[in-house]
Amino acid sequence: MMIIMKANATPQQVEAVIERVKSAGLNVHLSQGVEATIIGAIGETHNIPTDLFEGLEGVETVQRITQPYKLASRQFHPEDSVLPLNGFTVGGDEIVVIAGPCSVESRSQIIETAIAVKEAGAAALRGGVFKPRTSPYSFQGLGEEGLEHLAEARAQTGLPIVAEIMSQVQVELMVKYVDVLQIGARNMQNFNLLRAIGETRTSVLLKRGLSATIEELLMSAEYILAGGNQQVMLCERGIRTFETSTRNTTDINAIPVLKNLTHLPVILDPSHSTGHADYVAAVARAAIAAGADGLIIEVHPDPAHALSDGKQSLKPEKFAAMVKQIGQIAQIMGRRLATVQGEYAPLKQGWA
Amino acid sequence: MMIIMKANATPQQVEAVIERVKSAGLNVHLSQGVEATIIGAIGETHNIPTDLFEGLEGVETVQRITQPYKLASRQFHPEDSVLPLNGFTVGGDEIVVIAGPCSVESRSQIIETAIAVKEAGAAALRGGVFKPRTSPYSFQGLGEEGLEHLAEARAQTGLPIVAEIMSQVQVELMVKYVDVLQIGARNMQNFNLLRAIGETRTSVLLKRGLSATIEELLMSAEYILAGGNQQVMLCERGIRTFETSTRNTTDINAIPVLKNLTHLPVILDPSHSTGHADYVAAVARAAIAAGADGLIIEVHPDPAHALSDGKQSLKPEKFAAMVKQIGQIAQIMGRRLATVQGEYAPLKQGWA
Amino acid sequence: MMIIMKANATPQQVEAVIERVKSAGLNVHLSQGVEATIIGAIGETHNIPTDLFEGLEGVETVQRITQPYKLASRQFHPEDSVLPLNGFTVGGDEIVVIAGPCSVESRSQIIETAIAVKEAGAAALRGGVFKPRTSPYSFQGLGEEGLEHLAEARAQTGLPIVAEIMSQVQVELMVKYVDVLQIGARNMQNFNLLRAIGETRTSVLLKRGLSATIEELLMSAEYILAGGNQQVMLCERGIRTFETSTRNTTDINAIPVLKNLTHLPVILDPSHSTGHADYVAAVARAAIAAGADGLIIEVHPDPAHALSDGKQSLKPEKFAAMVKQIGQIAQIMGRRLATVQGEYAPLKQGWA
Amino acid sequence: MMIIMKANATPQQVEAVIERVKSAGLNVHLSQGVEATIIGAIGETHNIPTDLFEGLEGVETVQRITQPYKLASRQFHPEDSVLPLNGFTVGGDEIVVIAGPCSVESRSQIIETAIAVKEAGAAALRGGVFKPRTSPYSFQGLGEEGLEHLAEARAQTGLPIVAEIMSQVQVELMVKYVDVLQIGARNMQNFNLLRAIGETRTSVLLKRGLSATIEELLMSAEYILAGGNQQVMLCERGIRTFETSTRNTTDINAIPVLKNLTHLPVILDPSHSTGHADYVAAVARAAIAAGADGLIIEVHPDPAHALSDGKQSLKPEKFAAMVKQIGQIAQIMGRRLATVQGEYAPLKQGWA
Repeated sequence: MMIIMKANATPQQVEAVIERVKSAGLNVHLSQGVEATIIGAIGETHNIPTDLFEGLEGVETVQRITQPYKLASRQFHPEDSVLPLNGFTVGGDEIVVIAGPCSVESRSQIIETAIAVKEAGAAALRGGVFKPRTSPYSFQGLGEEGLEHLAEARAQTGLPIVAEIMSQVQVELMVKYVDVLQIGARNMQNFNLLRAIGETRTSVLLKRGLSATIEELLMSAEYILAGGNQQVMLCERGIRTFETSTRNTTDINAIPVLKNLTHLPVILDPSHSTGHADYVAAVARAAIAAGADGLIIEVHPDPAHALSDGKQSLKPEKFAAMVKQIGQIAQIMGRRLATVQGEYAPLKQGWA
Repeated sequence: MMIIMKANATPQQVEAVIERVKSAGLNVHLSQGVEATIIGAIGETHNIPTDLFEGLEGVETVQRITQPYKLASRQFHPEDSVLPLNGFTVGGDEIVVIAGPCSVESRSQIIETAIAVKEAGAAALRGGVFKPRTSPYSFQGLGEEGLEHLAEARAQTGLPIVAEIMSQVQVELMVKYVDVLQIGARNMQNFNLLRAIGETRTSVLLKRGLSATIEELLMSAEYILAGGNQQVMLCERGIRTFETSTRNTTDINAIPVLKNLTHLPVILDPSHSTGHADYVAAVARAAIAAGADGLIIEVHPDPAHALSDGKQSLKPEKFAAMVKQIGQIAQIMGRRLATVQGEYAPLKQGWA
Repeated sequence: MMIIMKANATPQQVEAVIERVKSAGLNVHLSQGVEATIIGAIGETHNIPTDLFEGLEGVETVQRITQPYKLASRQFHPEDSVLPLNGFTVGGDEIVVIAGPCSVESRSQIIETAIAVKEAGAAALRGGVFKPRTSPYSFQGLGEEGLEHLAEARAQTGLPIVAEIMSQVQVELMVKYVDVLQIGARNMQNFNLLRAIGETRTSVLLKRGLSATIEELLMSAEYILAGGNQQVMLCERGIRTFETSTRNTTDINAIPVLKNLTHLPVILDPSHSTGHADYVAAVARAAIAAGADGLIIEVHPDPAHALSDGKQSLKPEKFAAMVKQIGQIAQIMGRRLATVQGEYAPLKQGWA
Repeated sequence: MMIIMKANATPQQVEAVIERVKSAGLNVHLSQGVEATIIGAIGETHNIPTDLFEGLEGVETVQRITQPYKLASRQFHPEDSVLPLNGFTVGGDEIVVIAGPCSVESRSQIIETAIAVKEAGAAALRGGVFKPRTSPYSFQGLGEEGLEHLAEARAQTGLPIVAEIMSQVQVELMVKYVDVLQIGARNMQNFNLLRAIGETRTSVLLKRGLSATIEELLMSAEYILAGGNQQVMLCERGIRTFETSTRNTTDINAIPVLKNLTHLPVILDPSHSTGHADYVAAVARAAIAAGADGLIIEVHPDPAHALSDGKQSLKPEKFAAMVKQIGQIAQIMGRRLATVQGEYAPLKQGWA
């Protein structure tokens, strides 16, 4: 960490900063140049907040040299993390396609969808039962009833389940049912939820917040990893920008940047990142070509009658066509589509 | 609500949309123009999500005419909401200045600060005890111990307490201690938390999310109001943009826009919206000149040794100078500074 | 165009709007609903600005139904525009890769680069001679001398030349030398320049502005098309967002959105949209998988000594590896790489 | 300037960077820490682009310590620049209010407006004659005829004229007529225009681009100052963000930030920064309270019939009420409204 002093900082101010650095358990490397005095703070700095120094008098700015996260960092963990998930893996040679409706609406809807997406090539089933809705007047999900429908769909198809958790009070219920706990964009910095999930041993799909930087996404992953839960996948789902022709802006750069900075698998959600069924396939192909490890896609047997997100949901036949293209691009990238074979065999998950 | 059909929509598709509108309990006004067929959906539409129609075939786009919120809307409630708070009010003629440290760090720190900010003209005391920190390795707040210190500072000064709540599991504890529950920017769309707080009768300071639109802020207020809690103040605290010379961008436009759209009081937080002590006073003056009902300001007796946000915290003497200017601008706006007189007399708050 | 009146608009205000619509040569379709009165303005509206009505009393908002551009619109021109360029085409089955240095620095540098990129599979040569630099103290380009070097590189390789034009006063000079006039992001709304180029018959590569919407990009294309120049290619080069880990954010969504809205070819510039050589290949592959018609890539024989943009320039060998992958993805998309064969044979271009 | 090397940079790479620094005429200060090797480049660095070093192998990132501009910097020029303008000054004790229509539409319109805004307290007259319009089909301004009307309005009222220049080819014409050359947001990085204006001695109002950082605004000012034209005022006019309830987002933080970084006067344009007449007065008051040196406001005698920007134009009577409030806030800030007295007496301006 480098602490850059103001041009007119006094020797007393420099001294005060140096003492602060030492009291934080760091070593000092002083560099008194013509332009500015720079105080290097050397040691384990990832767990030292910059605002420990920013408020000191005479300090112009504080600049990190190393990253503020460690467990999520590729520097600390150079090999790709390869997470097992019901007979296949995420983050290795296989490309995982997760698919299903925005919301679980009924037993028949989710079972019908599960069968269709499996046939089309999906390896996991998504479906929301607690829905974060902007309006208090919108459909908020089926709750536990929805989880039971999901479990039944899983029993019939072998597809592991991905479902969103919205609060720390839902952890106990959710880990009983789901294979992957999804943390939604609006909860990426719900630190109480992150800590609670860090204490479980259930896999996690952590979505990037609407206006979260890539570094902040990795800091949120660090919360979960620091709790001892190593089964974390990251998910780019579009960021909020000035552009209004799509629901969000897919940050495709985030794919190679994340693959460079972290060992965790990276998934893309083109349904939310575009918000429009017509654009999903193009962006899904782009993601795999850019090096993503998988996709999460909204599929609904009858989008016109979906209770939520109908506009961005694919019909099963369109989804099947898309998966075929994804498979071809995967091959060019030296990878192959993950598939579920045989019956569902749960991982040893749940609580630590 | 207007449903605009694609240029090539078939009569069958138009018919299907019309039936959907009717089944949602709305009336239909069909307008078949040369450019496009437009289906007006008339009635109580604020609680109808647009995605009920967006997924239907042949639909180009859906446009609201009226707002998606009702209880928060000035149209529904034309008079300003004036909230009582320990002998003064928020949202009426008085300008309330809330001040205090980012975090409660110790008994002496918070009591010393409370005395100083009261003397300088503050009418309420802020102080965090549960801190939403980007890093799992940063100071996370004193918890209940901090609440006890806050209560003692209140007993000594009469200043009501504003403190942030981070999770629905903290509601019971927090309503025992605080006068105003602050919902932080990162939790503006933590819908479980909003619902839980809607069920209390404790005042709320709802902060705008880093990338939340003004409409989304009002939708989050609607969650709380819909629960029966009418004591909601809104807080602009800066939004995330491309500009990096300040921590956030103060959306000063939001002040007159909110005063136009809603009856709820509007507070500005220049400490977070600028992120730099040198810029706080200028933006605080701007807020009052723009019509804000109050300010929330970070003040620390020794910013250089603050455990968090030292860079943006004012020393008490700078704060006092600022409050004096605020008082002068308030006068031009036909208003005056709120002050606490006599002992603390709690409102009947807590659970409904 | 729909003009939505305020809830409390008077009949006189409605009448005034209706007269204004008629005086603009449009027909009126009045829809007096319970929620709001909506005045449809019907006819040729693409050339009517919405602010003709927005300032009228009683008007809440004005909403376009049809697009504000016509010549650039796919609705008006359903077939893809396929532009000829020295023996190959842009916008049809061929994928065009344009490559070369940020700036032409010397005769040997540009000739060496031209030979290398042609060998690697590029079909056109880029090189800046007038450089838009943020600082007045930075290298501003070689000017006409650079154009002569470019022409010599073209003579040796057959590669057509793409170079940026910065001002209307450079038009005469530029059309003498270059095959494609590049309009940079900072000049996307330099309307005098757009008009001047619209009067030439030289091909154009129009880059999207840093914070331009897709609609604004198409409106700028409309300026050129309206002048009679039909040879326009669009270029996504990244937009400015809050994310700082890359120079810009590649709006990959823009590829399918543009292919949907317009018949013009779409090129992606991953060098500027990422700003980092390490990320260029991933985003280039993504672009072709998303349906782009080509790429423009910065290649420099010795990036470490480039006078500008060295950080984001590829070495020829890395570029060659990338083009190979692009060719494989092109094949999956049913396309093939454009190549230059034989000598350079200029199109009949220049002035109209 | 600090060049931070990658953790695994080789001694050869460090050596190569050091040689590059020296060859740029800078001195080297090497700091080999445990975390990283940092190479300080010391000397006159404002005119050295960071990309001179960013492309070198082994370089992680390059960080400026001092600003990339000099003439615009307060460090270089600590005293406020106070620019004379027809009997009053900008940047000193006086607050200047510039007002007038978006476009000059006719002789009577501009004269009527000039008389009205002068009476209300304006000290200068604005009016566009070359209009940068998003659509090629919109009204593009009266050109020289408009300048003649402006000159006549000036002769009648004594108000100096502010008008936008769009291209370097208009310089000769514009300096004959106007007192202040306005550079619009879309041309803030039209470097050819900036250079051409730098060669004149006419005052300049330089508007911040829609997505330009504050540093970029100052770099554009540096272009003009470097040409020898010292009469530069800066103008915040709103930036583009995700918020859609206003046309732009007023970056009120920019006022104190600019006053801190530069000696140049700072003006705010609340008409464009809000886009809505109802919000102009609130944001205008905020600007003066935040420390701005003046305002530029769109006023039209009949906004409903304005050819452009009617929605955001104030009627003269609303403008007069606003100026009164501005005068009161100016007083609190220790300042007063500038006024024009007697006849128009032009400065010695025009070409150098």
